[in-house]
Amino acid sequence: MIAKTPETPYYAVIFTTLRTSIDKGYIETAKQMEDLAKLQEGYLGIESASDKVGITVSYWQSLEAIVKWKTNIEHTVARSKGRELWYQQYQLRICKVEREYGFTKK
Amino acid sequence: MIAKTPETPYYAVIFTTLRTSIDKGYIETAKQMEDLAKLQEGYLGIESASDKVGITVSYWQSLEAIVKWKTNIEHTVARSKGRELWYQQYQLRICKVEREYGFTKK
Repeated sequence: MIAKTPETPYYAVIFTTLRTSIDKGYIETAKQMEDLAKLQEGYLGIESASDKVGITVSYWQSLEAIVKWKTNIEHTVARSKGRELWYQQYQLRICKVEREYGFTKK
Repeated sequence: MIAKTPETPYYAVIFTTLRTSIDKGYIETAKQMEDLAKLQEGYLGIESASDKVGITVSYWQSLEAIVKWKTNIEHTVARSKGRELWYQQYQLRICKVEREYGFTKK
C-alpha cells in the first residue's frame, strides 16, 4: 500500500536490493522485520515492491528514530544474515522528505 | 538495476503508485518517460520495481533539475494521462539524500 505520512519534513530510508538465489528464511525474516519496524518509536510507514530489484521505503519521524532502528539487536542479526545469504548487492539511502504531492482518483 | 549515484547530498523523487486496470499506452509511455528523464540535465539515475504497488525512485543533482523535469512538456502531458487513465492513487515525495551505504557481495 501507499504509506499515509504526515506533513513534511520527515525522513525516508530507501533500501534497494538485488537478491541472491538463496531463499532460505528470507520471506519469514522480511515479514518479521516489517512487523518489528512498525513497533519502533518514530515509525511512520512502509512501501515495498519487487521484481528485478526490490525497493523498500520506510518512513520515520527523525534521524534519531532511524539510528535507533539500525541498532535494534534483532534487526542487526537480520542484516548480517542478509549480507551472508540473501543479498547480492544493496544500497541504502537516508533522506529528508522535503515536499510531497498526492493524487487519488475520484 | 541499482543506481550508481554520486557522493551525498543529492536529491531523490520517490513515486509510489497504485494502478487502475487500464493498460492502454502505459508501458510505452513509462518507457518513453524513463528514456526522456535520462536526457535531462542533473539526472543521476533511476530504480523501479512493481508488484501490488509500483515504486520508482529517480535521483537528481538538485531541486532545480527536478522542477525543470516536472515542467518538461512531454512529461506534463504524460502525467495528465496518468491521472486520467493509469493511476488510481499516487504519492510523490521529493527528498534530499543525506547519507548512503552500499554492499556488494564478494
